Amino acid sequence: MWKPDRSIKQPIYQQITDYMEHRISFGEFPPGSVLPSERKLADLLGVNRSTIVQAYEELRASGLVESAKGSGTRVSMHKWGITPKQTPNWKQYAEGGTFLPNLPFIRRIREELRNRESIIDFASGELSPDLFPNAIIRDLLQNKPFQEHLGYEDPQGFSPLRSSLVSFLEQHLHIHATDSSILITSGSQQSLFLITQCLLSPGDAVAIEDPSYCYSLPMFQSAGLRLFRLPVDEHGINPEDILTLYRRHRIRMIFVNPNFQNPTGSTLTLERRVRLLEIASELGVPIVEDDPFTLTALDGNPPPTLKSLDTTGNVLYIGSLSKIAASGLRIGWLIAPQAVVSRLTDARQQMDFGLSSIPQWVATQFIEEGHFENQIIKLREALLEKRNEMIRGLQQLIQENVSFTPPQGGLNMWCKINGSVDDFKLLDEAIKKGVIFVPGSVYGSDHGYIRLCFARPQLDEIMPGLNLLKEALQLPCLVRSSRIPAAFT
Amino acid sequence: MWKPDRSIKQPIYQQITDYMEHRISFGEFPPGSVLPSERKLADLLGVNRSTIVQAYEELRASGLVESAKGSGTRVSMHKWGITPKQTPNWKQYAEGGTFLPNLPFIRRIREELRNRESIIDFASGELSPDLFPNAIIRDLLQNKPFQEHLGYEDPQGFSPLRSSLVSFLEQHLHIHATDSSILITSGSQQSLFLITQCLLSPGDAVAIEDPSYCYSLPMFQSAGLRLFRLPVDEHGINPEDILTLYRRHRIRMIFVNPNFQNPTGSTLTLERRVRLLEIASELGVPIVEDDPFTLTALDGNPPPTLKSLDTTGNVLYIGSLSKIAASGLRIGWLIAPQAVVSRLTDARQQMDFGLSSIPQWVATQFIEEGHFENQIIKLREALLEKRNEMIRGLQQLIQENVSFTPPQGGLNMWCKINGSVDDFKLLDEAIKKGVIFVPGSVYGSDHGYIRLCFARPQLDEIMPGLNLLKEALQLPCLVRSSRIPAAFT
Repeated sequence: MWKPDRSIKQPIYQQITDYMEHRISFGEFPPGSVLPSERKLADLLGVNRSTIVQAYEELRASGLVESAKGSGTRVSMHKWGITPKQTPNWKQYAEGGTFLPNLPFIRRIREELRNRESIIDFASGELSPDLFPNAIIRDLLQNKPFQEHLGYEDPQGFSPLRSSLVSFLEQHLHIHATDSSILITSGSQQSLFLITQCLLSPGDAVAIEDPSYCYSLPMFQSAGLRLFRLPVDEHGINPEDILTLYRRHRIRMIFVNPNFQNPTGSTLTLERRVRLLEIASELGVPIVEDDPFTLTALDGNPPPTLKSLDTTGNVLYIGSLSKIAASGLRIGWLIAPQAVVSRLTDARQQMDFGLSSIPQWVATQFIEEGHFENQIIKLREALLEKRNEMIRGLQQLIQENVSFTPPQGGLNMWCKINGSVDDFKLLDEAIKKGVIFVPGSVYGSDHGYIRLCFARPQLDEIMPGLNLLKEALQLPCLVRSSRIPAAFT
Repeated sequence: MWKPDRSIKQPIYQQITDYMEHRISFGEFPPGSVLPSERKLADLLGVNRSTIVQAYEELRASGLVESAKGSGTRVSMHKWGITPKQTPNWKQYAEGGTFLPNLPFIRRIREELRNRESIIDFASGELSPDLFPNAIIRDLLQNKPFQEHLGYEDPQGFSPLRSSLVSFLEQHLHIHATDSSILITSGSQQSLFLITQCLLSPGDAVAIEDPSYCYSLPMFQSAGLRLFRLPVDEHGINPEDILTLYRRHRIRMIFVNPNFQNPTGSTLTLERRVRLLEIASELGVPIVEDDPFTLTALDGNPPPTLKSLDTTGNVLYIGSLSKIAASGLRIGWLIAPQAVVSRLTDARQQMDFGLSSIPQWVATQFIEEGHFENQIIKLREALLEKRNEMIRGLQQLIQENVSFTPPQGGLNMWCKINGSVDDFKLLDEAIKKGVIFVPGSVYGSDHGYIRLCFARPQLDEIMPGLNLLKEALQLPCLVRSSRIPAAFT
């Protein structure tokens, strides 16, 4: 990212004027478009707001931009005396399209995290950077020559990686697969995207957990799906609810996250798993089992995955390295019947032509040389410590404000705020204090729930973070507002 | 991929029986699904067909599968005495979805290339493996420690890579951009996918070149777009045609590949470029400039890119490393106004959470250390030789059968077959002889055209390949059939 150069003579505001003029001159900000606000640009470039005010003043003086009250600073339609008759209405284009933008709430959280490095992060549902196997990956890259070809990789995924995963999943999760029943994807996200785009049609009804991170993904709405809720209690969903939904809406697919469910942390009991499989089989409705967390089990192993109990190919199984090893590798997998794997492989080839061979090769070495197993062992120790620290903190600091059931794995703690609270206001206050989390409404939940990720902060940030949260909770922001269903807008 | 083990006692057919039983047992082939044909499985496993016949016989004897004339071998619905009431109708699911499958023609070509290693490949529009910078990438990975974080990468792309590309494109193509106006994508394919999904809505009319590789991408139809043709002559499209299309159909976007167009190889003249920009600006219709080949210019540089002539942000510029360095890195870029970059970044984050940091880091080193420039120099020499060899071959061997205009860059030679010919039959005959190409109808063209990629085969394969093509052309398959528009089915 360009920054003004403080070592040269030209004044900073002048450098910024030139820089913005350059960006305008080649259409990064076409005529009619709005420049970043003074405050935002000042943050981005690391200068005082007054410097930006001065730079924008210069641009205005040259006729390149115009300002109108309340609508910010716009690029003039008549710059340099030329009259570009019309330029595309980019705003309109950007607001079109079948694919919906992310929820404003999520975009806001991402922006805060990007711009404020010192904030304590209970929001990002991923590991802290020190839990990634950086040294191992660096050494793998340096010590073993990369001998693979650099042409288009097999769109179903690098063949040795598929073989390694088949063995790993068999050994650690008792999941049976073969090289040809597995598709390598760019994380679980892409598996879900392919399923919603290629196996379901607009108008199809699907059942998802309530609450569920699926509500935070506009991809379900982008695919035109109708979402129906399966309420989650401390033992997961109640399979009988599926029968009701099926009778009313002919649901075509069931999405579940049976182990350490995101966001509630609950685990589906064995009895319910068996019944779920029975019902799905009776109805001929497939189950998508999203399983990012099983290997993070903290208090003994959870019941077997649905996939390992499935003998008739009713379950599409989704996993990935993102939540348990390195999200930056972008390696996930989908295990499915042949017909599904072929269809999704064909589609993904059209969308992005498959994954780069290099991270797939790295992931193969990572698994083959035993590093993945070691990673899991270390990860469990670290997560256990962090989870327990968060439990301690919640009990010591805000026991009167929140209720929670400690999860037996995964990365998240789901807390109910006692008393009525407005998610949006609480989040605002928390951000002002220096801590951030995800409000429950993002997951389709009522107001009054929050998801705290204990994996993301450093161990010694957990107590201070909860202290800041405590302060936010004590402010008079606890006004209940009506339920705002995140995904049904 | 599993293969039978010839070193152990168990007979091969028995090993295959066990392997298939295993695949059936966990739902890779659910009840009711069709097993691979005997011939296909024999090819895949490298055994005689009779061995597969014997294995399938065993499976039938155990009641696990059933055969019916004409419908192949199916997994029994009553296996092992269990009566799974219903399983999902996977065939129906796989045939659903908004996203359309690849054209059968393209799937067929891909399958032939996968299964027959000895075939001479004029079909794949990419470099031969020896033209990829394998040694350089291997050394980069080994000699420089990877110090980047392994969390989710910036969904707009690795920041140092964006900076490197901005400088490279400025220097070599006079394209102006900044870090914030560039989005890193998984090749040009993903740029196009994002544009069609996020900036256009179902029913929108767009103008594409005729012929064009866009017709070979069902992604345009998947997005529900109405395609209108801009005929390409030896100097590219005629910009005035856009006015006609606009008046009739209110086209919302124009897709062009001005340099060494795929498949025709033609180059848009400077005069037409200027007029194209004028018209697009007058109408306020954006242009998508797909530019995979400019750096492969063989006979002097082509006119400046549309993007370098654009001052008002009417042009979305797409490029990638795939056709000129290494497709396996999966690195492409899109340069666009801010509003577009933000919208597409948000969408791609939802689809796949961004690219892996490792290939992005490798690409950065590749550019920064001057390897990309060297690659381009070497590549041009090699392509020049190959193109000239193909010209010689066409002239010597099948001059009476084909007409062509030698392209001044790119990877492809577009040939018109003299006399009437059925593309499908010609392709069949050619494959039988041992050579493969892409028929013109895949690009929306009339029958009687073929695209020969001269970059993919080895230099010494070009003559033998053309000889085989000559033999195919001499067979009595030259029966004209009616025009079958690939993309309008």
